[in-house]
Amino acid sequence: MSQVLNNSVAQATGDLYAEVQAFYARQMRRADSLDIEGFAETFTDDGEVVHADGGRTAGRAEMIAAMRARLPRYEGVSTQHWFGQLLIERLADGALGVSYYTLVAQMGEEGLSFQPTYTVDDVLVRDPGGSLRTRSRIIRRSGPVRR
Amino acid sequence: MSQVLNNSVAQATGDLYAEVQAFYARQMRRADSLDIEGFAETFTDDGEVVHADGGRTAGRAEMIAAMRARLPRYEGVSTQHWFGQLLIERLADGALGVSYYTLVAQMGEEGLSFQPTYTVDDVLVRDPGGSLRTRSRIIRRSGPVRR
Amino acid sequence: MSQVLNNSVAQATGDLYAEVQAFYARQMRRADSLDIEGFAETFTDDGEVVHADGGRTAGRAEMIAAMRARLPRYEGVSTQHWFGQLLIERLADGALGVSYYTLVAQMGEEGLSFQPTYTVDDVLVRDPGGSLRTRSRIIRRSGPVRR
Repeated sequence: MSQVLNNSVAQATGDLYAEVQAFYARQMRRADSLDIEGFAETFTDDGEVVHADGGRTAGRAEMIAAMRARLPRYEGVSTQHWFGQLLIERLADGALGVSYYTLVAQMGEEGLSFQPTYTVDDVLVRDPGGSLRTRSRIIRRSGPVRR
Repeated sequence: MSQVLNNSVAQATGDLYAEVQAFYARQMRRADSLDIEGFAETFTDDGEVVHADGGRTAGRAEMIAAMRARLPRYEGVSTQHWFGQLLIERLADGALGVSYYTLVAQMGEEGLSFQPTYTVDDVLVRDPGGSLRTRSRIIRRSGPVRR
Repeated sequence: MSQVLNNSVAQATGDLYAEVQAFYARQMRRADSLDIEGFAETFTDDGEVVHADGGRTAGRAEMIAAMRARLPRYEGVSTQHWFGQLLIERLADGALGVSYYTLVAQMGEEGLSFQPTYTVDDVLVRDPGGSLRTRSRIIRRSGPVRR
C-alpha cells in the first residue's frame, strides 16, 4: 500500500483506468449473478484469494468449492458489489496492483442491507489473449483505527 | 447483457469512459435537483423509459408528466443517485449500450435511508451536436437470485 | 455549478479523469487512515475548506488543528469516504473545478452506519512538480429540495 499511496507512482492512463473498471464490472456481474464458474474464470488458473477471516483459496477448483459452500447465504437475496476509490499501480513485473474499497448491498425480503466494508488489494495480470485476470486478492475487513 | 458480459466486446477508450460518466453525472444532478425539464432534455425526443414496476413512458411529454406525478415523494428530502460498475459496449448501429448498478441515498428529517438497488440498461446516442442523450432506459429491480 | 452542469463545458479527457480519480483515492486513503499531516499535504499551503456547518479553515496549520479536534469521533471506528458522480471542468485560470457526491461509511462495534450525504465543490491546482493539490473545498450537506 505504501507504494500505492505514493504520488510518484506512474499515473495510469485513461485507457487503462477504463479497462480495469470494466474488468471489475464484468467480474462482479458474474459474482452477483452467482455464476461461480464464470467468476472463477476471471482469475488465473492458480489465482489466490485471502479472505478477511484468514481463509484462503489457491487455484480455481478450491475457489469454486469455497463459493459453492457459501451459496446458501446468497440465495433469496440480490447482491450488488460496489467498488470505490480505485488505485492502480504498475508493478515491476508488468502486473498491475489495484486497491479499492468495497460496499456490498443486499436486497432481501426485509429490504436493503449492507455487509461490512472491506479494502481489497488485487494483483492483475494479462492472459495470452491480452485480457486481464486476477492473480491474487487480499480482502481486509476495515477495522477500527487505533492511534 | 450477454454481450456486455462478453470479454470480447471492444474495449471503451478512456475518453469515452470519462464522457459517459460525465453524461450521467450531469443527468443525475438534474434529477436530484428535481429539474424535470432539464432531466428530460438529456433524453432523445422519443426517449423511452421502462420502470421496474413495468410502467413505461415514451417521449419527453410523458416522461415529464410521470415525473411530476412522482414529485411529492421527493419533496422535503434530498436525493443522490449513485451509479456503479458501469459497462459500456458499442452497438452495431453506432449507439452505446451502457449497464450500471444504482444506489439511491435519501436524506430526510429522520436521517439517511436507501431506496432499493436497481440494475439499469441504457442505450445512448449522439444528437446532431455530438452530445450524448439517452434513447432508452430499462430499470430492473434487483430480485432474489434463484438457482 | 451552472458551468459544471452545462453540456458545453470542454470534455475532460480520459487521462485527466483517471488522474483526478486517483488523486482523490490517495487523498481519502490518508483521511480514512487518520494520517492528518499526509492528508493536509494534499492541499495547497493556503488551502481553504468550508464545512457544511459553516466552519472554515484557511491554510494547513488550521486544517491540521481542526482535524485533531475531530479525531475522537473517528477513533474505534473505520471510515470509508466514497465519491460519486464526479464532474470536472477546466477553469479560466487553468485550475480544475470538480464537483462530486460523498457517501461516508463507518464500521464500528455495532456494524455499518452512514454519515449524511454531501455534495462537494473543489478547486484543484498543480504544484510545481505537476501533481494535483486541493486549493479550496466547499462541503454542502444535501438539504431537502423545496420548490
